[in-house]
Order: sequence, then C-alpha cells, then structure tokens
Amino acid sequence: MAGDGVDQRALQYEQTLMYGRYTQELGVYAKEEAARLREGGQRRSVGRSLDLLEYDKGRCAKCRICTVRCQKFLISRVGEDWIFLILLGLLMALVSWAVDFCIAICLQAQKWMYGGLDSNVFLQYLAWVTYPVVLITFSAGFTQILAPQAVGSGIPEMKTILRGVVLKEYLTFKTFVAKVIGLTCALGSGMPLGKEGPFVHIASLCAALLSRFMSLFGGIYENESRNIEMLAAACAVGVGCCFAAPIGGVLFSIEVTSTFFAVRNYWRGFFAATFSAFIFRVLAVWNRDEETITALFKTRFRLDFPFDLQELPAFAVIGIASGFGGALFVYLNRLIVQFIRKQKAINKFLMKKRLLYPALVTLLVSTLTFPPGFGQFMAGKLTQKEALVTLLDNRTWAKQGIAEDFDYLGHLQAWQHPQVNVFVTLVLFIVMKFWMSALATTIPVPCGAFMPVFVIGAAFGRLVGESMAAWFPDGIHTDGVIYPIVPGGYAVVGAAALSGAVTHTVSTAVIVFELTGQISHILPVMIAVILANAVAQSLQPSLYDSIIRIKKLPYLPELGWGHHEKYNIRVEDIMVRDVRYITLNCCYRDLHNVLLTGNLKTLALVESAESMILLGSIERAQLQALLSQQLGRARRMEYIRENAMAFKKCMSDPESPPPPPPVEDTNSQQRHSTQEVRFQITTEESTLSPTRPTPQKPLKPALKRPSVVDRPPEILTANNDNSGIALKNLFCANPDAEAVEDDGDTEDDMTIREIAEWEEQQLDEQVNFSNCKIDPAPFQLVERTSLHKTHTIFSLLGLDHAYVTSIGRLIGVVSLKELRKAIEGSVTVKGTKVRPPLASFRDSGTSSSENEATELHKLWDRHKSMSLPREHTQSDSDEKSQ
Amino acid sequence: MAGDGVDQRALQYEQTLMYGRYTQELGVYAKEEAARLREGGQRRSVGRSLDLLEYDKGRCAKCRICTVRCQKFLISRVGEDWIFLILLGLLMALVSWAVDFCIAICLQAQKWMYGGLDSNVFLQYLAWVTYPVVLITFSAGFTQILAPQAVGSGIPEMKTILRGVVLKEYLTFKTFVAKVIGLTCALGSGMPLGKEGPFVHIASLCAALLSRFMSLFGGIYENESRNIEMLAAACAVGVGCCFAAPIGGVLFSIEVTSTFFAVRNYWRGFFAATFSAFIFRVLAVWNRDEETITALFKTRFRLDFPFDLQELPAFAVIGIASGFGGALFVYLNRLIVQFIRKQKAINKFLMKKRLLYPALVTLLVSTLTFPPGFGQFMAGKLTQKEALVTLLDNRTWAKQGIAEDFDYLGHLQAWQHPQVNVFVTLVLFIVMKFWMSALATTIPVPCGAFMPVFVIGAAFGRLVGESMAAWFPDGIHTDGVIYPIVPGGYAVVGAAALSGAVTHTVSTAVIVFELTGQISHILPVMIAVILANAVAQSLQPSLYDSIIRIKKLPYLPELGWGHHEKYNIRVEDIMVRDVRYITLNCCYRDLHNVLLTGNLKTLALVESAESMILLGSIERAQLQALLSQQLGRARRMEYIRENAMAFKKCMSDPESPPPPPPVEDTNSQQRHSTQEVRFQITTEESTLSPTRPTPQKPLKPALKRPSVVDRPPEILTANNDNSGIALKNLFCANPDAEAVEDDGDTEDDMTIREIAEWEEQQLDEQVNFSNCKIDPAPFQLVERTSLHKTHTIFSLLGLDHAYVTSIGRLIGVVSLKELRKAIEGSVTVKGTKVRPPLASFRDSGTSSSENEATELHKLWDRHKSMSLPREHTQSDSDEKSQ
Repeated sequence: MAGDGVDQRALQYEQTLMYGRYTQELGVYAKEEAARLREGGQRRSVGRSLDLLEYDKGRCAKCRICTVRCQKFLISRVGEDWIFLILLGLLMALVSWAVDFCIAICLQAQKWMYGGLDSNVFLQYLAWVTYPVVLITFSAGFTQILAPQAVGSGIPEMKTILRGVVLKEYLTFKTFVAKVIGLTCALGSGMPLGKEGPFVHIASLCAALLSRFMSLFGGIYENESRNIEMLAAACAVGVGCCFAAPIGGVLFSIEVTSTFFAVRNYWRGFFAATFSAFIFRVLAVWNRDEETITALFKTRFRLDFPFDLQELPAFAVIGIASGFGGALFVYLNRLIVQFIRKQKAINKFLMKKRLLYPALVTLLVSTLTFPPGFGQFMAGKLTQKEALVTLLDNRTWAKQGIAEDFDYLGHLQAWQHPQVNVFVTLVLFIVMKFWMSALATTIPVPCGAFMPVFVIGAAFGRLVGESMAAWFPDGIHTDGVIYPIVPGGYAVVGAAALSGAVTHTVSTAVIVFELTGQISHILPVMIAVILANAVAQSLQPSLYDSIIRIKKLPYLPELGWGHHEKYNIRVEDIMVRDVRYITLNCCYRDLHNVLLTGNLKTLALVESAESMILLGSIERAQLQALLSQQLGRARRMEYIRENAMAFKKCMSDPESPPPPPPVEDTNSQQRHSTQEVRFQITTEESTLSPTRPTPQKPLKPALKRPSVVDRPPEILTANNDNSGIALKNLFCANPDAEAVEDDGDTEDDMTIREIAEWEEQQLDEQVNFSNCKIDPAPFQLVERTSLHKTHTIFSLLGLDHAYVTSIGRLIGVVSLKELRKAIEGSVTVKGTKVRPPLASFRDSGTSSSENEATELHKLWDRHKSMSLPREHTQSDSDEKSQ
Repeated sequence: MAGDGVDQRALQYEQTLMYGRYTQELGVYAKEEAARLREGGQRRSVGRSLDLLEYDKGRCAKCRICTVRCQKFLISRVGEDWIFLILLGLLMALVSWAVDFCIAICLQAQKWMYGGLDSNVFLQYLAWVTYPVVLITFSAGFTQILAPQAVGSGIPEMKTILRGVVLKEYLTFKTFVAKVIGLTCALGSGMPLGKEGPFVHIASLCAALLSRFMSLFGGIYENESRNIEMLAAACAVGVGCCFAAPIGGVLFSIEVTSTFFAVRNYWRGFFAATFSAFIFRVLAVWNRDEETITALFKTRFRLDFPFDLQELPAFAVIGIASGFGGALFVYLNRLIVQFIRKQKAINKFLMKKRLLYPALVTLLVSTLTFPPGFGQFMAGKLTQKEALVTLLDNRTWAKQGIAEDFDYLGHLQAWQHPQVNVFVTLVLFIVMKFWMSALATTIPVPCGAFMPVFVIGAAFGRLVGESMAAWFPDGIHTDGVIYPIVPGGYAVVGAAALSGAVTHTVSTAVIVFELTGQISHILPVMIAVILANAVAQSLQPSLYDSIIRIKKLPYLPELGWGHHEKYNIRVEDIMVRDVRYITLNCCYRDLHNVLLTGNLKTLALVESAESMILLGSIERAQLQALLSQQLGRARRMEYIRENAMAFKKCMSDPESPPPPPPVEDTNSQQRHSTQEVRFQITTEESTLSPTRPTPQKPLKPALKRPSVVDRPPEILTANNDNSGIALKNLFCANPDAEAVEDDGDTEDDMTIREIAEWEEQQLDEQVNFSNCKIDPAPFQLVERTSLHKTHTIFSLLGLDHAYVTSIGRLIGVVSLKELRKAIEGSVTVKGTKVRPPLASFRDSGTSSSENEATELHKLWDRHKSMSLPREHTQSDSDEKSQ
C-alpha cells in the first residue's frame, strides 16, 4: 500500500533524514565488528570453561554443570532462525489481530454515534464528519511528533532497504509505536486506506527489534546479510498476517521488494507467514468470531461449473480495463502530490499548519460519503470490509424479469436505492472511491493503498458481472443446462486485476484465492491479472516505484522484458572515463585536492598514474580521517612538543647537532617552535616564502559555519577535535569565503599563519595507507560487459558503483546513475518509465516512420565519437528498431 | 520426475558426455560472437537502406517500402519475448495434451485386452504382463538408440544447466523426439512413473529448439543470459502444462531449479505457464472431455466447515510421517542404484543385455499388481489417475455403524475387497507402491517420480483420514452441529506433504490447490508441507540433488537455514594458497610447465612473481592455443622457409652479413635450415648442448595415442594441424611413455631431434599475449569475505572459482570444490547432506556432552595452525555449540 504521506512536510524531512548510506561502506565496519565479536566469543568461552573447572571442585558439581549446560543450550537455541521466525510470526499475528480488533471497535463506535443521532440530520452529519477528522488529525500529529518515518506505506522504503541502502531511523522502536497507533487510528476513521503496506513495515520493524532483543541473549551472531534475509522474511509475514494469505504474502512481498530472490529466504518467508496466518486465524476462532479456520472473505461459488469458456472475453476486458485504471491511479496519485508540491502558496500555508491538510481531505471525503447525503448513491454507509463482503456475494443483484427470491438483506441494502439502479450505484462507487483513494493515500498518516484499490477492483468486476448477467440472464451455455452467470466471480477477477495493475504484481491472484478460499476462477483471474499487468507496466511505473521516485530514494529501474537492445549496449558505452583516483605513493596534497573536487563516496586506489593498475577502493570518510589525522590538532601539539624538546636539548647540550628538521622549511619551523621566536614571527607578516609553488586557493581558511546538518556523521566525529584550516576548508560548504577569523581555539601556541605553513608542509608528505581501511576487491567490470549483465550484477549484489578495468588497468567507472540513465534512456519522459510490450510497439512504430538514412548516419557518427551514454542508448535502440 | 535412469549404462555415457563446460569460459566467445553479429547487423542495415533508396526510383516505390516495412515489423516482432512465450506455451500445451491422449489410449488398450480375455486367467496374466514389458522395453531401447540423454527426469540436469553448466547434446531435436516418444510409451505401460520431470525437460527442449527456429527469422539476438532466462521460463511451463497448475508450476520450477531467481523471469514464467495451462484445459473442453475449464482432479469438499481446529494435530502427524517417508524414498532410490552399480556380476550381465533390466523390473511390478492375483489387495486394477481420483473422494469409506448409503461405485470398487478391510488395502497399496515407485524410477526410460509419490502420499493421507473418521464418527466439533471428518481432505494434505518431502519444496501445496480446485485446506496443507520439509531436509538431500550426486553433475550445496557458524567461516580459512599463475613476462617454457602440472580450467595472470598483482585470468585452452601456435608446424615451416631464403640470399650475395639469428643457438639453427647441414645432423646424435639447464622430462616426446575422447574439443581443433613434440607431450594422457616414434608426418625437412631442439629454443621466447583472450576482471574475493557471502556470490553469479586478493595481490583461489567441502564440512556422511533444524539439535547434543576443555584446546590449536578448511568448519561449529 502506498502513495501516501508524500505531502510537502514528508518531503522535507526526507531530504535531510533519508539519504542513503550504502552497505558497501558499512561492510568494512561490519567485518571489523565481526572479528571483534569472534575474538570476544573465544575469550568468553575460555572464561566459561575455567569457571566450569572450578565448579568441578565444588560439591554438587555435576548438577551445576548440568544447569549451566541447559542454560547454554536454551540460549544457543534462541539464536536459531526458526525460533526467531516463530516468534516473529506470533508477534505479528497478535499485532495484526489487535489492530484489526481496535479498528473494528473504532468503526463500530462511529456507526453507533451515527445511528444514535438519527433524529437530527445535522447532528448526524457532525458526528459522521468529526469522528474521522479527529482520528486522522490525531494520527497525523502523533506520527509527526513521534516518528515521521512511520508515514506512508513502507513498501517503497523496504524495497530500498532490501536493495542494500540504509535508511536512518527507519527501524526503531519509536517508529514501531508511531506506525501501529497511527495506522489503527487512520483505519479506524473509515477513510479509504489500507493496512497491507504499513504491515510490511511493521513486520520489518518487529524483525529488527526482535533481532536486537534476542541478541541480548547472545545467541545471534549479528550479520549484515542475515539481517537482510530476516527482513525479507518479515515482509512476507507482514502481508501474510494481514490477509491470512501465507503463499500470496510471500509472493507479493517478493515481487514488490526484490529484483533477485534467494530461494532459501522464500523458505523462511513461507514458514513465518504460515505460522503467522495460522495464529491470526486461530485468534479469530478463540475470540468466537469464527467457528473454524476459514478464509477472510469466504465466497461460496458453485464448484461444478464455475464459469463458461465463453465468458473469458469478459474477463479479458476486465483485465485490460483494470490495466488502464491501475495506471491512471498511479498517475493520479503522483499528480496530486506534485500539484501540492508545486503550488508554492498552498505549500507554504500547509507547511505552517501541518495538520490542516489531513483534516481537510478527511472532511471532504467523509462529507461525500455521508449516508443520508451523497453517500446513499455510493453505499457510503459500508465500511471497506463490508463493501468487499457484499461485492463478493454469490447472488446476482440485477433482477431481470426472472423471479429470483432475492431481497437485499443486511449490508446488501446499502447497494439498493429506491430511485437509482444498482448499476448507477456501482459506477458512482467506483468513480468516487477512485479519486478518494488516490487523494486519501497522500495524507501523511501510516496507510497503504492496496485494500482501497482491491475494493474498487471488486466493484468494477461486479459491475461487469452484473452487466453480463443482465445480458445473458440464462447463462451462455447452450447445452440445455442453465448455468447462470456469477457476478461475484467477476468481482474476484476485478479485485485481483486492479490491485495487480497498481502494484505491478501477479501474486494478487494468489492473494484473492487465499482471501476468498476458492480457487475455481484461477484461469480468469490469471488471464485478467496478466493482461492488467501488461497494460499497466507499459504505461506507468508501479505505485511503489512511483513513490520511490517521488521520495527520491535510490533505485535501479528494472529491465523490461523484450528489450533486446539492452543486450547490445556495453559498459564502454555508458561508463564515465574520467575516474577520480588516488595513487599508492601520492602525498596528502593530492588527497586534499581529490577530496575537494569530487564528491564520490569511494575513490579508486591505483598503483601509479602510469600503470593505473587498480588496487582497491577507499571510502571518502577514510581519506578524510587520514587527512584529519595528518593535519589534526593532536599531531600539531606533538610536533610543537617535540620541537620544544629538541630546542631544550639543543640549549642544554650545545655540542650536539640540532634535531633533523622534518621537512624543507626548517628555519621557520624551528623559529615557530620556540617561545621567543614565535613571538617574533607573530608580528611579522611576510614569512611565507613567495617562491613556494603551491596553489593558494584551497588553503584559504574558511569560515567555521554553524550549520552541521549537511555533514555526514563520520566527518563530524573525525572533525570535532581539530582546528586545521585546510580541513575546515574541506569540510565546510563554501571554501571561497575569504574572511580570516580567529577560531577561538588557537590556545595552542601557533597563529593561523603558522598553522597554515605547518599544514602546507604536512600536505607534502607521502600518505601512509597502513591504518586505512581499503576494500581490496571492489567490483570490476570489463568494457564489453553488456548492459543486461551489468544490470543483473548490480541488482544481484546491490552495488552502488563498479570499476571498469582492462587487464588490471582502471579505465572507467559505472555508477547507479549511469546505469539508470542507460536503462531509462530515451523513454524517460516526465519521470515515468515506459515499458514493453506496448512500449516496444510504439517505439518501433515511431522510429520506422522516420527517414532511415538519417538515422543510420546519426548512428555511425555516434559510434565513432563514443560520446554520451544517453545518446548511445538512443542510438542502440534506433539501430534495433530499423 | 527423477531418480531414474541411473543404471550402469546411463552412468557410463555420463562420464564421457556430460562433463561440464562453464559459461564463464563461453562468455568470451559469446562476446566476440555478439560483436560480430552487431557489426554484421550494421552492415546489413546499410545494405537495406541502400536497397530502399533504389526502390525509390522504381514505380510503386511507396507500396514496396510499405511492404518491406511490414515485413520488417513482423520479423522484429518475432523476436519479442512475449511472442516466444506464447508460442512456447501453445506448443507445450499441445505436446502435453497429445501425450496425455496417447497415454490414455495405451492404458485403455491394456484394459480392453485384459477385459476381453476374462475367460482364461493365464491368458489374462500374459496380456497384463506382456503389454507393459513390451512398451517399457521399446521405450528403453528407443531412447537408448536415439538419445541416451533423454533418460530420466531431467530436472537435475536442468538445475545444472541453469547453474551455468553446459551439458552436451542435452537440448537437441533428437533428444526431444526420444523424450516425448519414450515418455508416452513408459507412462502408457501403467508403471508407477510420472510425467512432471520429463515435462520440465521437454519444455526446455522446446524452448531451445523454438529459440533456434526463431533465430532463422533474424529477430532474436542470441545471448547467453537470455537463453538462461528462457530456459527458466520453460521449466515453469513444463510443470504448469503438466498439471494445469500455472502458479504452482512457476513456484515448483523455481524451488527445484534455482538458488537465486530474477523476479523478471518469474513474470515470464507466469505468463507462459498460464497460457499453456489455459490451452491445455481448453483442449480438454474442445475434445468434449469436460464441460468447462476446471481443475484436473476436482474435489468437492464442503466449504463452510472444511476442517476442525482440533484435527490439526492429525495433519501435523501426516506432515512429520511424510517427512520421514520422503527421506526414506530418496534413500531407497539411491540404495537401489548403488546396489546395482556395486554388484559387479549383475552389473556386467546387465551391461550386455541392456534391455533386460527394464523388462525384469516391469515384469516384477506388473506381476504383483495383476488384479486377480495380489493386485486385488492393493487396487492394482486402477491406473495412477484413477487411483488419485478415488483417493480424493469426498465420502468416507470406513462405515462405522452409521448407516451411510454408500456403495463402492465405479473405480471405488477396486478399494473394496470382500475379505479384507479397506485399511489393509490402503496399507498394502502404500507399502507396495512405495518400493515399486522407487524401483521403477531407476529404469532407464524418460520418467519422473513426482506423480507416484503424490499418489502414495494421497493414499497415506486417506489412511489417516479414514482412521480419524473411524475414531470420531460424529466429528470432533462439540457445539451440537455434526461436522463429520472428510478423509479426502487428509488425502490432499498427505499428497502435498509427501511430494514436498521428496522434492524439498513447499510449492507442492500450491500445486494441490490448483490440481483439486479447492483451497479450503490451505492451513493444514501448509503446516504439513512445512513439517515434512523440515524433517526430510534434515535427513536426506532432495531427490533431484540425490540424482545430481549420483550422476556426478557439478553442484553447489545449499546453506541450511540456521547454520550460524557459516557466518563465521572466512574465505581465508578455505582458500587454496598455492595458486597456479603465469606472469606477464613469462616465457613459453613457463607456460608449458604450468600446463603440464595443473589441470585447472583457467589460470591467473599476474604482473610479476614479486608484485603478484592480479591482471586477469586466461583459459587453459587459450594458453594451449598460444603454445600450439608457437611450436606449431606452420611456424616451423615458415622458419625453415625463412632460413632457406636467408641461406640462398647469403649464397647469392656473399658480401652481405648473414641474417640475424632469431635466438641464441644460431649455429645449429643455421645448420638445420640448409639442406646439406640437415643431412649431416640427422646422423649425429650429440648436437643437443648438455650445458642447457632446461628440464628434460617434459620434452620427451610421447606416443600419439589414438584415443581422443578425453580431450576437450578446443584442444582438438587447436591441435589437428601440428606435430610438435612438446605439444603432444602436453595433450597426451601419459607423458612418461618414452618411446620415440616417427609420427609419419615429418615430411617437413626436420628430424625429431631437430624439432626438439627448435622447440627448446622456441620455448625460451617471451610469450606474446596480444592475441590471447584474457578475462580482465575475474571475480575477486577478499580474505575476510564470509563463507555465507561467498556462497551467495557463487550461486548468484554461477561462478566456478574466484581469486582471493589482498590490495590487488593474488593470495589464493577458491573453487566450487573448496566451497563444497567447507559447506558440507563434517556432516558429509555417506554422501548425504544433513541439514537443520533437526541437525542443529543433534550437533549441539553430541558436542556438548564431550569434554569441553578438550574441545577448547583443539579449537585453539586449530586457530593457530590454520590448517585444513574441513577441520575449521568443525571447530567453528564446536565453538558455536558450546
């Protein structure tokens, strides 16, 4: 579920909080941590066995050993994956059940209030409207205050996290609380919102917290890849326990969050999701809601003849229409977000009154669904669940002459209106709910869009089904036996198709089977879902990808199927040839310059500028730390101390030669280091030798700016204990600020000028990489690696960038950006990704209508010049389409 | 599906035919081919546009251009994936339907013969037995003659192919014909064999052939990764159209063939499998077998109360028992193969009479199932399909006092016996079919084991269900309403659980839902399948993995879940430190020596022996080609020609200095090169300078052996035009054969001794790598990469080996072998892989009962010595379990 929480406020904090740190960077830390833990573990076990030996001397030694062993056994068991998964499943089932229970109470309360005030329509209206407004406003405010990360669906973020990106503060306890309470209130308001997406996030939160909790017992060995595996399983649990659909949950979570999937995670997901769904349904039985374990929205279609073969075209039509509808929904959702973001006046106003937007939207939606008002024409009385149950009903609503003893009983009454046909009610329901859902999912509360879309799809299917039933009152079958058409089956097909189109998944088919408890309509559902996907995928990205783009999270677009030209593009066509690198024997000045000019997260380390043999890659932060160390205050102090010592020694023992000066500029240094000379120099202005050929500009000391928000945390920690000028220059935002200020921490005995000189000199030293963490095997590609393979490798390994080498020599670099450009290529119009099969039709249609000779000419030109990667993509696709 | 075709004969050809060539090697060729194709395409398009320009001058130019465009459009469409997938689905549906149709006719014919001869029991027996024996013998003989690769299931081989290994002759038209006809005959015989596994293979064959066929139209760009993707989709189609189970088919094929799968392939699989299943079922409707599209084995269980919560323990029991049963089946199957292989006398005899083994097995099985004989106690009359239909029946068989008006009608009569209880019949059926299926699947015909196992599982479930129904005649529910127990539901659960246990998959759950058309028992099925998997996986490998090991196909064991110690092992613990490498400036002699000593497929290329900076890897075949070129006859001839020219020149122009000799040993060379000197030397025996320090042994010319089967094809092509001694030495199997023979092709004017000398001299030249294909970016790992990550990378990228580097320096290599050893580690007992969760219980149980101090001591010793990887695995797990 998604589409959500993308209002101006949400967008603001994302830019500051949600920047991605790739695990490639974290890998090094993780390894060190692992080594530390392992050593720790060994030491600990030594200690333990010594303890045991001591116990042996005691009286009831055996007994004690036994106890210790049992304890150890239990603790070691706690670390087992399957215990973890069972606990996760149990927890999530409880959470899901509790949330459902609270939502049901909230909705009942609204109905009770509304029902109790039936004497006065105005009071009724007030109650009907105020209640959701209060709940939504509370939900928005609560999440805003406690954890703004809890806003929205969660699936886009989980996709990003499983891609290997670390989103800050995204898996904390605060977020958990905010998400659960926020979701309960939001859904309790009766707005067209879903719980699926948030449940994926909640399950991931549970997994992360549980993992942390269980590591207290010591059993678990914390590991990056294991965490990712557990999160993948958690996503499956989230969907599984939300719909009591373990298989569909696993598949849906795979389709929605992964590009590549490990079969062993699939196992984990199945295990946990089944357990969770089981407990979730058992809770319903224990609570006396159900007699036994059955499906959530059980249907009772006939088994012997579920549908006629001749009905298949109607199902196909549902599929295609749902495809267009799904694409429209995604577009509408994005349009609303972009509209609000663009209108500066609205934006500013809403920024100030953050809770106004949710309140206004809720007011609008609930006013329109007010049952005595417009709501009477669109079954506004029904909650989402009730609407779904009625839509999947077994019976035919549209009575066509044939006396079917069918009264609109219970909730079905809502669809009946004395003046208006049931077809009109259904159309109104679909149209109104469509834009309402698209609008409601932009409210900054924890919410998803799956369930609303599912209900709209069911209504659309029902509409087609009722029309079919009206058209063929005796069924289509001609062999004598009358098999009337079952509109409920159409509703199932429509629900699966529309939700599949919006999320770009085919597993919604499995979800509907598990939700309804019937699989008899498998072929119509599959056909409709596949057609809907084909149409929707060629028009718009999925809702989750759309949100990823809106939120500017890092992503890698998928390769469409059938894009043959992708097999023809090579890495050499898209790579950046101007690679920033450092050499093994470079000096700190080079380091400084490199850090100043680029802003890549990692830098290539080559043997020498001549050989260009790639030795590894170093993180930017590591280099910054190296530089900090070299120019840091601690080192300067030491230098001063040493010089002072040397001077003293020199004074006390005049025969001995003066200590060897560290670098060339010995005179000034020696002068600096002593008290009297220092004094002398501070008054002097022209000590800096003008013959020195160093570039002055990067060394100009900059203002120490108060804003530190923009700096990554590593720099902050590395930076907080030194006052180096060059460093500041490096870390501060605008190095062209000329003002030379005393920083207030020149309490060490050097003036700024002295420091600058000392730093100059330090910068000329050769870099000592021995304490630096180097990644000795960054991922390498070859010039001729195809784009297809590159994409596969990037998505398989979750890479951020890869170096291109030719027999060990570094010749280029490809990052996610280049790859993204190359894949989206020419078809990136207005931020949407256009995909086959329809896209491929269109491409070839347009290009073949152009002058082919011209294209060929262009193509050859491009091939010779090897210019921009983007153009190359185009040219390659042109070549293909000729 | 499997277990199959592993008799002695099959094993023999596998050793020669089925060696794996990894795609890493093929990658280079693929790239070159791709470049060639691309250039060709460009040239072609130039030609085309020129043609078009010429047309312009013609009369109806526009019309023609239009036609050409349409044609081009159609051709380019043919290359689209979705057309390919539709065609594949259509083709497979037709094949599946046709095979089913033929099998049904065959089985009917047997019944008709058996029924017509009911006057004489002996004639009846003869007919009952002869018919299957003839069919099976024909099937075995036919596949043996046409394509022995068609024998068996096909899933193990497809798993290996999708892993990136190229199996020879495995995807040819001959194999397709042999597989389809062989399978039809084998299943038509009524033996307990299945069609699922072979259908996976047939679908892959179809995909490969279709791909080749469509490339005739030019549309498709042939590519390695695309082919793999198409094969993955084909596997899904195979299962999907076999059971009309598209979703289950996709999932089953993923679980069975992949370790990692791309979600985009999943899409493809869904699309093709749905289309295929649809057509498959539509064919049934058109053939008037069915009224409309429904499930293959439709069940009619009640929907309102499918099962009681209190029945769940019984379902769990089915799951656990099925787990043990599944493991036993795999074990039994392997035992039979190994028994036949070990008994040399039997083996020899059977080798001679290849068709005797199938005939004997068939005779035994059909004798036992003869309905008037023992078959009457085990429903021997029923075909597999009929048995399954009756087992899934809605009604309760065991009448317990309550007057249920239930007569054993139709096929159900087979289960009824006047003397014997239905329980006894069921038990006999299960026991007999169990070993019969395990035995039958070892017959060398195309066959699988899924369906027989499925039926046995259903019978077991039925047995439990009937027992439950007998135990609780009024159902368990206590709230007044009587819900009798449905034994058919138990049969569904048992079928899913046992087939899941044998194949180690959970998607059998989905398959049963699709097969029965009912999903009401989802939770019992899921619980039973998961329990069965947990038990079976901890006892035995899956049937397919078992066959992979029996057939000695390359494989990578999977990491069990919960094995935490895997996160603790590092590459440095398992890598081979003694890496064979060649340096950039080595001479041909080094190359020669390296090739002689090792037999790795690729060799590392380093900058120099001192720096050890890894530059890339070279294939062995490439090096052999280099060496062939250097020492080849063409070059020798050229050398002779040049020398002759120089000699002539020298003779004709005595003033000019003699031509500069190529290398040091100028005197002897010049002498060789002229006619008279050559004559002089051939009589002389001591021209070889004894001061030369080269090792003599590798240069001793060896016998040219007639057997060329062992040589890889690259060598053959590289070798067929030269007669170099050192080369022969290298390529022949035993280089210690001392006999110096004249090869008969010394028609060039040099004796063997001269050639040896010339070669000696050539070997000292520096290698010119410029024409050599070097893989400039072999996969690199770091010392501290964890085993878990290594496994992931190997299975993700389908690697064969990876180099371990430390800041660009080569320090080791890890190949599949080391990885396999490290993963299977200490638990590889008797070729089986023991996996958690039960395994982890047992491990810790045994290790914690030992003396912990001793273990600790061992651990420390090991840690210091860093000895064998195998021991390390143990120590790590010990450390964990303390």
